[in-house]
This record gives sequence, C-alpha cells and structure tokens, in this order.
Amino acid sequence: MRDVTTHKKWTLTELTKGLDLTVKGDSDCLIEGVATIQDAGPAQIAFLMNPLYQKFLPKTRAAAVILSPDYAVDCPVTALITTNPYFVYAKIAAYFDDKPKRVSGIHPSAVIGKSCEIAHSVSIGPNCVIGDHVKIDENVVIGPGCVIDEWVEIGAGTEIQANVTLYHRVKVGKNVLIASGTVIGSDGFGLAKQRGKWHKVPQLGTVIIGDDVEIGANCAIDRGAIDNTIIGNGVKLDNLIQVGHNVQIGENTAIAGCVGIAGSANIGKDCMIGGGTGVGGHITITDNVAITGMTAVSKSIRQPGVYSSGVGGVIDNKEWRKASARVHRLEQLIERIKILEEKCRVD
Amino acid sequence: MRDVTTHKKWTLTELTKGLDLTVKGDSDCLIEGVATIQDAGPAQIAFLMNPLYQKFLPKTRAAAVILSPDYAVDCPVTALITTNPYFVYAKIAAYFDDKPKRVSGIHPSAVIGKSCEIAHSVSIGPNCVIGDHVKIDENVVIGPGCVIDEWVEIGAGTEIQANVTLYHRVKVGKNVLIASGTVIGSDGFGLAKQRGKWHKVPQLGTVIIGDDVEIGANCAIDRGAIDNTIIGNGVKLDNLIQVGHNVQIGENTAIAGCVGIAGSANIGKDCMIGGGTGVGGHITITDNVAITGMTAVSKSIRQPGVYSSGVGGVIDNKEWRKASARVHRLEQLIERIKILEEKCRVD
Amino acid sequence: MRDVTTHKKWTLTELTKGLDLTVKGDSDCLIEGVATIQDAGPAQIAFLMNPLYQKFLPKTRAAAVILSPDYAVDCPVTALITTNPYFVYAKIAAYFDDKPKRVSGIHPSAVIGKSCEIAHSVSIGPNCVIGDHVKIDENVVIGPGCVIDEWVEIGAGTEIQANVTLYHRVKVGKNVLIASGTVIGSDGFGLAKQRGKWHKVPQLGTVIIGDDVEIGANCAIDRGAIDNTIIGNGVKLDNLIQVGHNVQIGENTAIAGCVGIAGSANIGKDCMIGGGTGVGGHITITDNVAITGMTAVSKSIRQPGVYSSGVGGVIDNKEWRKASARVHRLEQLIERIKILEEKCRVD
Repeated sequence: MRDVTTHKKWTLTELTKGLDLTVKGDSDCLIEGVATIQDAGPAQIAFLMNPLYQKFLPKTRAAAVILSPDYAVDCPVTALITTNPYFVYAKIAAYFDDKPKRVSGIHPSAVIGKSCEIAHSVSIGPNCVIGDHVKIDENVVIGPGCVIDEWVEIGAGTEIQANVTLYHRVKVGKNVLIASGTVIGSDGFGLAKQRGKWHKVPQLGTVIIGDDVEIGANCAIDRGAIDNTIIGNGVKLDNLIQVGHNVQIGENTAIAGCVGIAGSANIGKDCMIGGGTGVGGHITITDNVAITGMTAVSKSIRQPGVYSSGVGGVIDNKEWRKASARVHRLEQLIERIKILEEKCRVD
Repeated sequence: MRDVTTHKKWTLTELTKGLDLTVKGDSDCLIEGVATIQDAGPAQIAFLMNPLYQKFLPKTRAAAVILSPDYAVDCPVTALITTNPYFVYAKIAAYFDDKPKRVSGIHPSAVIGKSCEIAHSVSIGPNCVIGDHVKIDENVVIGPGCVIDEWVEIGAGTEIQANVTLYHRVKVGKNVLIASGTVIGSDGFGLAKQRGKWHKVPQLGTVIIGDDVEIGANCAIDRGAIDNTIIGNGVKLDNLIQVGHNVQIGENTAIAGCVGIAGSANIGKDCMIGGGTGVGGHITITDNVAITGMTAVSKSIRQPGVYSSGVGGVIDNKEWRKASARVHRLEQLIERIKILEEKCRVD
Repeated sequence: MRDVTTHKKWTLTELTKGLDLTVKGDSDCLIEGVATIQDAGPAQIAFLMNPLYQKFLPKTRAAAVILSPDYAVDCPVTALITTNPYFVYAKIAAYFDDKPKRVSGIHPSAVIGKSCEIAHSVSIGPNCVIGDHVKIDENVVIGPGCVIDEWVEIGAGTEIQANVTLYHRVKVGKNVLIASGTVIGSDGFGLAKQRGKWHKVPQLGTVIIGDDVEIGANCAIDRGAIDNTIIGNGVKLDNLIQVGHNVQIGENTAIAGCVGIAGSANIGKDCMIGGGTGVGGHITITDNVAITGMTAVSKSIRQPGVYSSGVGGVIDNKEWRKASARVHRLEQLIERIKILEEKCRVD
C-alpha cells in the first residue's frame, strides 16, 4: 500500500489556537484534513467565502466550516466564525501540509565553493552548485539542482526549490519562497547600436529581494544595469513572470502569471496586477493600483484605481472580425456624421 | 567527418506497412529520409497538405509524395494517396527520427531516494535526483538533471526530458512526453490578506496528468489548493504555458505556446487554444471550442464555436494611435448622433 | 568584511583607448566605477543620453560624463564627447564588470560523453552533462547544471550559463550568450489528428544559432519539423521568449521579453519587436519592421515601418467597460447613421 498522507489528527481546539474566531459547536472533534465544502467528510474541515458555494452549506458533511458571521446561522455543523475565513483557513490548512521536510546538512553530491558562510541548520540538496563567498543564513532550504553563484546572500528561513538559478551577488531576504526553474540575476536586456550592430551593455547591478517574498516557477528577474532591480518585502509573484533590469516593485504587491515588466518600470506598494499584463519600460505605477488581466500598461498611472486597456469581452470570431473592421473604419463614420451635421445645420 | 545521421534506408513497402493509403508508382524504391516538397531529392519522401505548396508538386524531385486524392493526378513521382496526408507523414517520418536512444539503467551520478519502485527497463540520466517512495513504471526515460520529488508516480512509456522538475505526489500517466525546463506541481498562487499583508494558503492538492499527454518546454503547472489540477488524456501543451491551481483540461485539447490559464478554470475536451491567450480564473469553457491567439477569455464559453477578443488586425502605428483615440471618444460620437436624431425628428 | 568588488582603477586615458570620442577635461583622473548621472561620485563615470536626465548634468559629482556634443557645454566636469554615448558607455562599463571568471577545464562532477571534441580552453561547470559526439570550440564557458545532448556543436567564445538545455544536434555559433533556464531544440508543436486523437509529428530538424547572438533566461526555442529553426547572426532575444519550429529570425533583430513566435514565421533583419507581442504561424515580417509591445501580428508585414494592433491606452476600468460595450454596439451606431442619412436625403 502506498500511503502518502501522514494521518496526523488535531482537535479543533488545537487547530484554532491563537486564531481570532468563535467556535459554535464541538471544539473537541478530531480533524484529519481539509476539503471543499461540497466534498468534505466528517473528519474534515471546510471553508466558505465565495457566495457561489453557499448552496452547499446546508448539506455539508464537514466536521466544521470556517465562515463569516453572515453564514453562521445556516451552518448545520460546527461553525468557526471569523471576519476573514480565508486567512483562518490558510492557518489551519498549514497543519495538513505534507510537503517534504528537508533535513539539515549539505548533500555529499553538492559542490560548495570557497569562503562560504553556511549556517548549521541549512539544508542543501543533491547536485546543488554553490559558488565562492556565498552566505546562507539559518534554516534556509535549497532544493536539488540549484545553482547559486558567487557572493549571493540568502536570509534566514528562505526556501529555494529545485533547479533555481541565482546569479552572482543576488541578495535574497528572509522567509522568501522561490519555486523551481526561476532565474534571478541574469543580464538585463541592455543593447547599444553602433554601425548597424548591437553591442552588449554590461549589467553591473544585481537583484535585491526583500523579506517574505514569494516567487513562482520559471520566472526570470534580471539584474540591474547600474543600480539594482528591487523586489520589496511581501511581494508575491506567480509563475512565468519577466522582471526587467532596474525594475522596482513596492511592498505587498501581488502579480499574477505571465506578466512582463519592462526595464526601469517602478511599481508601487499594494498593487495587484492581473495575469498576462505587460508593463512598459520606465513606467511608474503608484500605490494601490489594480490592473486587470492582459492589460498593456503603456503610460504611467498616477492615481490609485482599477485600470484596463484594449477592448474587453470574448465574442464569436465572425462578430469579432466585423467589429474589428468597424473600428478600423471609424474615421469614415466620423466623416459621415460631420456631413450629416452640416446638412442639418444648413437645413 | 562528423556523421550525425544514421543513414537507415527503407523501401516504400516497409514504410507504408499498416497505413491506410494507396501507392501509385514504385513501392520498392529506397527511402533515406523526408524533406519538403520543394527540396526533396530522389531518395526522400515529401508530403503535400497546404495548398500554398501545390505549385511545387509538378517539379518535385522527391522519390514519393504523400498527398490527398485531389492532388494525385498532378503527381509526377510515386504518389502515396490518403485522406490524411499529415498523419501518414507523421507515421513515416518516425522511421527517420534520430533522437538519442537512452539505455536502460540508472546512471551512477543519479541520487535515488528510499523505498522507490523503479522498473528494470527504466532509464534515469546523469545527475537526476529522485525522492523517496517514487514509483516509475516500465520503459520510462528520465533525462539528465531532472528532480522528481517524494511519492511521484510515472506511468509506463513516459519520457521526461532533461532538467524537468516534478514536485511531491505528482502523478504522470502513460506515454507522456514532458520537455525540458518544465515545472509540475509547484504551489498554486493562493494568498489570503490579513492586516495589509499576504499570507500563504497551503497548496494541499497535486497535479494528475493523464495518458498520451505532451507538455512543451518551460511550462509551469501548479498543484491544486485542496483538490487536484487535472490534465486529461491526450492533452497537448506547447511551450511556456502557465496552468494555475485546480485547473482542469479535458481530453485531446491542444494549447499553443505562451498561454496562461488562471486558477480553477475548467477547459473542455477537444478544444484548441491559440498562442498567447489568457483564460481567467474560475472560467468554464465547454467542449469543442476554438480560441484564436492572444484572446482574453474573461467569461465562460458555453457554446462550441470559434472565439476571439479585442480588436484584430495589425496596422501602421500612427493609424493605430488615431483609431485608439477614436475608440476612446466613441461616447462623443454617440452624443453627436443623438443630437442629429433629435434635430431630424424636430425638423 | 565581505568585499564583493574588485576595486580596479583605470585612468580615463586607459578607459577611452580606441574609442571614437573627444575628452574635454582631465584625462588622467582615476575611475573606479560607473554610476547614474545623479548618483555618481568623484571616482565614477556617468553617461547622459535620455533628455529626461539632462537636469542632473549641471550638478553632477561624477568624475566624467559621456555625452553627445549638444550637452557638452553644460557639463561641469570632464566631458567624454561622442555621437554615440550609450555605445561608449557600454565599452567603458565592461572594465568594471565583476561577473565571475570561469577557469578552463572540466569540473570532475561533469559527465562527458564519448567521442566529444572539447578544446583545451573550454570551461565546463559542475554537474554538467555532455552527450556523445559533442564539439565545443575554444574559450567556450558552460555553466553548472547544463545538459548538452548528442552531436551539439558550440562555436568559440560562446558562454552558456547555468541550467541551460541544448537538445541533440543543435548548433550554436561563436560569441553567443545563452542565459539560464533556456531550452533550445525541444520538439516543435507538430500534431496530426486522426480519428479524434492527436498524433505526434516527429521533429527531424534542429536549431541553428548564428554568431554574436544573445538569448535571455527561460526561453524555449523549438527544433524544426523537417528543415531547421534558424536564429541569424547578431539576433538578441530577451527572457521568456517562445520560438516555434521552423521560425527564421534575420540578422540583428532584437526581440523583447515574453514574445511568442509561432511555427514557420519568418522575421526579417534589423527588426525590433516589443515585449509580449505574438507573431502568428507562417507569417512573414520584412526587414526593418518595428512592432510595439503586446501586438498580435496576425498577417504578414511587407513594408518597413512601425506597427501595432488592438486599441492602445490604459484607462479606468469602468470607462473601459463602457468603451468595450460601445465597440461591440458599433453596428447599431452605423444603422442609426444610415437612417439619419436617408432622412436627410428625403428631407
């Protein structure tokens, strides 16, 4: 039998310790895991946040449901009442996370450079390559196959998952999570043209990543040209994101997958950027800006708010062809209106 | 002399064995390779499918051409007549594929965990890292530098190319192909905000990949939050595709490069999604939907058909600036029409 | 003390040797590094190109400023006057590049195949895997964790950074730079449908990369189906770029991040393609074309010029919703104009 799960059990009292919530029901019941409200069984805990799932509440078989005060009356099982059910869920779900634990120590297959400072509690996985003068603080976990070049510094509690590449002099803060395949500190796209040919502009800065940052899989974050590329504390990046040289991203900004940020863009704090968006070079986005998915940000945004570009709405392809043609003939339409306006005036 | 090719030769009879086609001409001629219809020499086989290339048929020097019945009359050389020339070409071309053969066995530099079940015919390349409890079925090939974490299961005949990362508990079906740099099972982008800061929501599901799936290079497929991310049998993904947590992709759906699929999107069977498209979170796309490239799918699609978004057509940048301005002034246009309408009524 | 920098110093005379410029001021001053014009100190050199930064010139504390003749009069410090300040900056900045130097030789942890031809000056990093029959010319540097498959050829002076994957038979020219995570030579997305299922079309070509090419991080360049995918001399690719099978990119074309190029597209020489752009399959783009960011190139471009698609301009989301709705109701607008035109004629 292949038994993946750990089958740890906790009482509700244990799971909710330190959390700001009210338990209405049995605090002693044993919980073995989490599940969706529609699928949860009698040893599982569920949460309700999205109104679309409210319909499943009356018939839920969960041991307990995490929900806001509004939904509490309709809860047929133990209710964990809180103003922020998703946050409470996150804290409780962490008890059931079966992600592999890494043991401290350096795997014998890892290649470690000279003059490194590596704390005792650090875990370095098989086939890692660590360059000279690298400094790795307590409780850092580095997954298999990572390449960490000279003079990199990694703060305490950070986890760098398998097959990540950090170029020389990159600085990573505390409690950062970097997912597999991500590349940090590659050269920015700096090119000078001379007699019809491109010449490389050396990229002399580096990348500075703050504390509590999360970076998804297969991202590419370039080092600065002269100054550094800077990712602020608490920034969250999804997968396949490109961050150009000298970009600055302010604290607690969250960016969804497939976003491309061109060089020297300056993105404020507490922004949310939807997937597939592109931010042009040298553009400034102020704090508290939300940008919907697949927007082309071609000029600076100076006021907080929600922004979009292009024409929204997915439609039938034939209609789309006609609509597109109409947009490109708008000038003729304007001409026809002008003629009408003149006629009407004359009349 | 560097001799890359294998110079194997087959007769047309050998190459067409088991294929549904009619040979018109010499079945015994020896074939050494495939080529385009315009470039093929007298020991090569070509195919004709795209009408744009019909003009090359009368003068082709190929030994034989794979084509549909309509073109057969004009074929000056041996004709392999079939209703599906591209499929027949695919089967014949496989004879000439010189991709490296991997030998069975585990390379001594690979690091293998405890309690793994690895079939005898499996090939594990140099510098792979296989975690504990991994199960790998017959004839699986794992390229160099792959990292396969705990409890992963890989079905028979699957090929995982170099530098791929599979996180813990990912399940891969039979006869799957995963290209280099792809990351499967990284954490979904789950964040709960509390007092202005983002907190990680543990991602407790995994990724289940069906049989006969192909996944291109440098993709990122996230594990589910509670339930799993599911890639159906026969799904084909190109390069640099992001698949968010809890996404489901139905059987035989093909998705081109640079597509981003946000969390909990549910894509049907037999769909085709063009390159650069973005699919929003929690969106449902029914079966048999085609989506043109770079579409923003911002709402569910309930009817089969072809869909697009935005305004199509690439135009001169100056015209584009004018057209864009006109779109943003459409309200004024509508106002002018209203005034005209009132005038005309009054008159 | 962690001392990253090398603290090499050069006189202006040394730094400007061989460059086409005029020094106005002290050629003997010692320079320790480069900095931005606003931040430079008395041992640093700066450059001025972007008019936005002209305001910092009068008060700069730099030892010297590289600038064009127009700005020379206002320069309060030593002026390096040239018609191409950015190019001169690039050449001078190279003196201060502290990127790690790799030592010649093959790291003992690297796995090298049979019948390889590897020049003496080559540097192969830890945990690299080199297949059989690979040919690597003088002064090539291959970073840690790279996987280079059978029959690959790499030209003199090329640098392949950590964790790059080159598939079998890929040919890389001289003085090429390939950043980490990039995959070259993976199978093109070739699929033939037969009885409702996709069948793989073998990808028998390879990828040919010219001299002086730069390829950024986490790109994916597919091998050709029959012929090869070809990247011309001097082409510069940013990060996260997808290049489909059989694509050809002409000399000195520069492509920004997150661009996707579908199969068999043919892009001319000296083009510039903005970030996030998509180029459709089988499309031809002539020489000297510039394409703005996030354009969907859905048809061939036969004339040099600047091109765009869609509707530009990022706007407030509510306005955007209204504008989008208006575009989709354009037909009604046209109808209303028609009615007015008829009325006016009748009147």
